[in-house]
Amino acid sequence: MTVNRQIHLIKRPSGVPSLDDFAIVETTTPDVGAGEIQVRNLLMSVDPYMRPQLDANQPLNTPLLGGGLGRVTQSDNPKFAVGDMVRHSAGQQEVFNSDGRGVQVINVDPDLPLTVYMHALGGTGITAYGGLLEVGALKDGEQVFVSTAAGAVGSVVAQIAKIKNCYVVGATGSADKKAWLLDEVGLDGAIDYQAEPLARTLKGLMPKGIDVYFENVGGAHLDAALPRMNVRGRIPVCGMISTYNGGGEGVRNLSNIIYGRVRMEGFVASDFGHLNAQFQSDMTAWLKAGQVKYQETILDGFERGPEGLIGLFSGKNSGKMLIRLGE
Amino acid sequence: MTVNRQIHLIKRPSGVPSLDDFAIVETTTPDVGAGEIQVRNLLMSVDPYMRPQLDANQPLNTPLLGGGLGRVTQSDNPKFAVGDMVRHSAGQQEVFNSDGRGVQVINVDPDLPLTVYMHALGGTGITAYGGLLEVGALKDGEQVFVSTAAGAVGSVVAQIAKIKNCYVVGATGSADKKAWLLDEVGLDGAIDYQAEPLARTLKGLMPKGIDVYFENVGGAHLDAALPRMNVRGRIPVCGMISTYNGGGEGVRNLSNIIYGRVRMEGFVASDFGHLNAQFQSDMTAWLKAGQVKYQETILDGFERGPEGLIGLFSGKNSGKMLIRLGE
Repeated sequence: MTVNRQIHLIKRPSGVPSLDDFAIVETTTPDVGAGEIQVRNLLMSVDPYMRPQLDANQPLNTPLLGGGLGRVTQSDNPKFAVGDMVRHSAGQQEVFNSDGRGVQVINVDPDLPLTVYMHALGGTGITAYGGLLEVGALKDGEQVFVSTAAGAVGSVVAQIAKIKNCYVVGATGSADKKAWLLDEVGLDGAIDYQAEPLARTLKGLMPKGIDVYFENVGGAHLDAALPRMNVRGRIPVCGMISTYNGGGEGVRNLSNIIYGRVRMEGFVASDFGHLNAQFQSDMTAWLKAGQVKYQETILDGFERGPEGLIGLFSGKNSGKMLIRLGE
Repeated sequence: MTVNRQIHLIKRPSGVPSLDDFAIVETTTPDVGAGEIQVRNLLMSVDPYMRPQLDANQPLNTPLLGGGLGRVTQSDNPKFAVGDMVRHSAGQQEVFNSDGRGVQVINVDPDLPLTVYMHALGGTGITAYGGLLEVGALKDGEQVFVSTAAGAVGSVVAQIAKIKNCYVVGATGSADKKAWLLDEVGLDGAIDYQAEPLARTLKGLMPKGIDVYFENVGGAHLDAALPRMNVRGRIPVCGMISTYNGGGEGVRNLSNIIYGRVRMEGFVASDFGHLNAQFQSDMTAWLKAGQVKYQETILDGFERGPEGLIGLFSGKNSGKMLIRLGE
C-alpha cells in the first residue's frame, strides 16, 4: 500500500479555471494485483486541450485527465520491468496501478534530457509533425504561418517547416518570445500580436501569401490569415485556444476559402500512430543536431498541477509547461 | 451592325446592391470578323457569386460578368454553325461577338426544356454534383444537411443525396419553400430558418449527426451545423451568402472541427471539368426520370438583370433565377 495524492476537478469552471475548481485529495494505492504494474509519476503534462475537457469529458472528483511520464516501481506484468521509464495517460496523481494498456515504455536516449519525451519527442512533437506534414501536406519551400509559434506545438511546427526549406512567419504574444523566434529559432519573420496589428503586419511579412497556416488560436489570428491564403492552401487545425474559455470574436473571413479552394481540417495526435517510428527517428536526429530548439516552463511540486493548467491561458509560460514531481 | 444593349455596373454597391448601381447602355455590335461568331442571348443567369465580384473583379462601365445561353446568328468559325445553341460567359448583353473561346455548343435534349441547361444541367448542377460527390466525398446512406436547400444549387445537392440513399435535411427561408422540400422533393426533414430556431430544430431532426454539411450560407447556419458534425465529417463550402453584403455574425463554433477531424473545403464549378461527361449523363437521366425536380424564377425582359441579381438577396426567388430575353 502506497500513499498517493490526486488532483481532482471538484466543480466545472466558467471561463478561465481558478484554483478553487480543483482539490488535492490524499488516498492510498494498493500493491499490484495479477498482471498489473505500479508507476510513480515523475513529470505531468498540462496542455491547452485539457480546458475543453473540463466542461464535459472530465468527470468530477477523479484525477484530472492528462499525460505523464513515470518509473515502474512494481511489476507483475511480463511486458514491464521495475525501473522502466513509461509514458502514460493516467492523469494527475503521484502513483497509479495499471494493467499496462495505454502505457508505453520509452527508450530514453542518454544524450537527451528526460523532459523532451514530454514535448518534442512526445505528444506535442507528433502533433506538430503529423499536423504539418500529413494534414497540412507541406511541400518543400512553401510559405508557412504558425500561430503560438513559441509554444510547445507551434515551435516544433515552425522548425520542421524551416528544416523543409520553407519561408516561416510565427505569431506569439510577447517581445521576449518574438526575440526567441527570430534570434534563436531563426524564423523569417515574427509578430508580437500583443504589440503589433496582426493582420497588417502579417500581410507585410508574407508578400507571397500563405500556403499552410498552422492553426492553434482561432479568432483574430484565423481572420488575419484567411485573406492571405494562396489557392489550394491548407489550414491544419490543431487548436483554437482563443475560444476555449468562451471568449473571442467570431470569425468573419471564412468566405475566402471558397475561391481559394482552401482546405481546413481538424486533427488530434492519436491520428498519427502510423507515423510514430518515422517521427521518433527524425525528431531524435533533429534534436541532437540542434535543428529543433525548445523552451520549457517547469513547475516543481505535484500540487502545482492546477496552477500550471491555469497558467497556459495567461500566455506567461514559454514553450512546454510541465509539472515535475521528483527525480 | 446590330443594335445591342448592355447592363453596366456604374458604381460599387455598399451592402445589398440597388438599381442605381447599374445602367442600361445602348451600343452597336459589328458583323463578325475572321474566325468570329455572333451570338444573340436568350437566357441570362444571375447567381449569388456575382455579388462579391461587384466589389473587385467586375470592371465599371462594362457588361456585368455572368453566364448565359444564346443562339449563333453569324459564324465565320468552323466550330460553330448558325442556329447552334451555346452556353457562354459573355455577361449581360443582348448580342456579342466572340472568337469561340469559352463558348460551348450544347446538344439540347428535345425532352427537356431549354432552361434546365442554365441550372440542373448547367453551372449550378455541376457545382452541386462535384461539390457533394467529389469535395464532400459523399457515401451512400450518410446523414446530409443542406443549406439554401430550395435554391438552384442546394435543391440539386439535396436530391442527389436522396438518390444516394442518404438521410437529408434542408434549411430554407420560407414556409412555401419548406413545403416544397417536404412534399415535392421528399426530403426527410426541412427547416424554415425564418420561423424556427435553426440550431435546436436541426439537432432534433438529425439525431445521428451530420456526415456532410453542404455550405451555401455561412454565419448562423454554419454555427448550427458545426456542433452536430460527426467524426470525419465534411463541409464542402460552395458559398457563404450571409456574408456577401458585409452583414452576418462571426462564426463561433469552429473549434468543433478539431476533435471531429472535420474537413471544410472551398471549391468552384470550374474545378469539375473532369466530371462533366459523367455529370451530363447522370443528370439527364435523373431529370427525365423525375428524380431531380427544380423550381425556376424567370424574369422576362433584358432590362431586368439588375432586379434579378438584387432579388437573390431578398430570398424571394424560388430555385434558379433567370432573365429571359426572347425565344
